[in-house]
Parts: sequence; structure tokens; C-alpha cells
Amino acid sequence: MGLFTTIDHVGVAVADLDAAVAWYAEHFGMRLEHEETNDEQGVREAMLRVSDGDDGPRLQLLAPLRPDSAIATFLDARGPGIQQLAYRVDDVEEAAATLRAQGLRVLYDTARRGTAGSLVNFVHPKDAGGVLVELVQPADQAAVH
Amino acid sequence: MGLFTTIDHVGVAVADLDAAVAWYAEHFGMRLEHEETNDEQGVREAMLRVSDGDDGPRLQLLAPLRPDSAIATFLDARGPGIQQLAYRVDDVEEAAATLRAQGLRVLYDTARRGTAGSLVNFVHPKDAGGVLVELVQPADQAAVH
Ligand SMILES: [Co+2]
Ligand SMILES: [Co+2]
Repeated sequence: MGLFTTIDHVGVAVADLDAAVAWYAEHFGMRLEHEETNDEQGVREAMLRVSDGDDGPRLQLLAPLRPDSAIATFLDARGPGIQQLAYRVDDVEEAAATLRAQGLRVLYDTARRGTAGSLVNFVHPKDAGGVLVELVQPADQAAVH
Repeated sequence: MGLFTTIDHVGVAVADLDAAVAWYAEHFGMRLEHEETNDEQGVREAMLRVSDGDDGPRLQLLAPLRPDSAIATFLDARGPGIQQLAYRVDDVEEAAATLRAQGLRVLYDTARRGTAGSLVNFVHPKDAGGVLVELVQPADQAAVH
């Protein structure tokens, strides 16, 4: 039982990625692990490790590349803050199909590229108690399929 | 390095706790692990395990006991959704002192009782990029002090 294996990351919308990465390092001692630009999603993003010994969920910082991106829309509507909750799955297409069969709206017809070669999709927040739920199939699982 | 050890839980505000627990079980297969009422915080809350084999962060569901509670205020302003991000610390008073020394506002002068005998405090979201950051010292650490 359990459609997801674990929480993969928590995503926080920020206006300025470099400033936010520096803020998390200075105040919370969190180390930048990975950074990339995702043109399709219109986002610059960073993955932070909570502490050096911790292999639990990462904190993801998300900054808009363009004013029409989902992160820009979120910042305009709500200001900076927690934007998404990402769960890890073994097979993103299978998880999306299970949720669709339950009547939940899944945003993309097929999964798209997420952070570090992962495959991702999203459940519509209106169908998930106001939470933007991301499904993440990590790159190592993605390579098998 | 790292002020926190790991993410402890992600807290989601819901209007009806029992309905939300049932929804997470039906759609995401998450199992209820613990439930309690915290009169001081004005909240009824549930801790869910993401999957049976997972010992990572829990999903916390939070429903208001009273219209003047923080959760009721959040629901009125934003509707249901992610309300807080909780990090685990070894010593909540020490972590709070470190953050205060950096000029961040910490909500309580001394930590209060959280879930399952833990000690908790909060960083003001205006001082943490719009994120309500909870500091959680679990009960086993709490007993030592
Ligand atoms: Co994400
Ligand atoms: Co909490």
C-alpha cells in the first residue's frame, strides 16, 4: 500500500534564485547540491541538501525564467513560499494512470523532464486538497524504461 | 554544517480532518500513524506515513478546532493547502537562539508542546521567504533535557 515511496522534495517559489541559495546557506546552513535551468518549465531551480549527513527529501528552490511560467504566476498571486510537494514513484506513467482512473486531473498527457533527468507529472491542486502534487520518477528508474 | 538534521514533516491545512485522512488513504494509499488534539494550538492533527516501508518525513494534516486558531486563519486567507515545513533539530532552544541571533523572528519565547510530546517553535514566515518554518525537537531528545 502507498502509491508513492517517499517525499522526494519540497518546492519553494523564490523571486531570485542566487539570493535564495545564499540565504539558505547563511541562515540554515544548507548546501547547494544541484542547479539547472528548465526552459520547458520556464524555471531556474536549485536542489539543497538539508544537512550534510541527510539523504532525506531535498529543498527545491524555483525561480521564474519568464513572466508566463507557473512559478511567475504563483509569485504574482501568493508571493514567495511553498509551491509544491513532490513524491517519488517507481513509474510515473503508472502512477498517473492510477490517479486518472480515480478521476483526478493529471496535468500532462505524458511525463516531462524534471530535475536531473527525472520524469515528472503533476496532480491538479484543485483535485488534491489545494496541494500541487508532483510525481517524480528519478533518472535511474527512468533509464530502465 | 546544517542547522537542521532533516525534514520532519510537511503540514497541510484541511477543513475536515476525518475526511482528509480518508481521502489520503483512498487516493494515495497513505496510512494514519498518529492522531491528536492540541488545544493550545487550536488544532486537530494527523500524521500519515507516505508508504509502509518509508521512514522519511510524514505528511501532517491540520484542521482547526476554533475560528481564531492559526489554521483557521490560514484556511480563511488561502484555502486548504501546504501550510508549514517542519525541520528536525537536536535542541529546539539552541536552534531558536541561533536564528534569533541572526535577526529572524521566532514566534514563541520558549518552545511549546508539538505532536507526540515533541517541542516546537516557528520562524516567522516574513523572515523566511514566505515559508512557515517549524522547528521540531522529537520527544526522545526532549526527554534528555
Ligand atoms: Co519539483
Ligand atoms: Co507541524
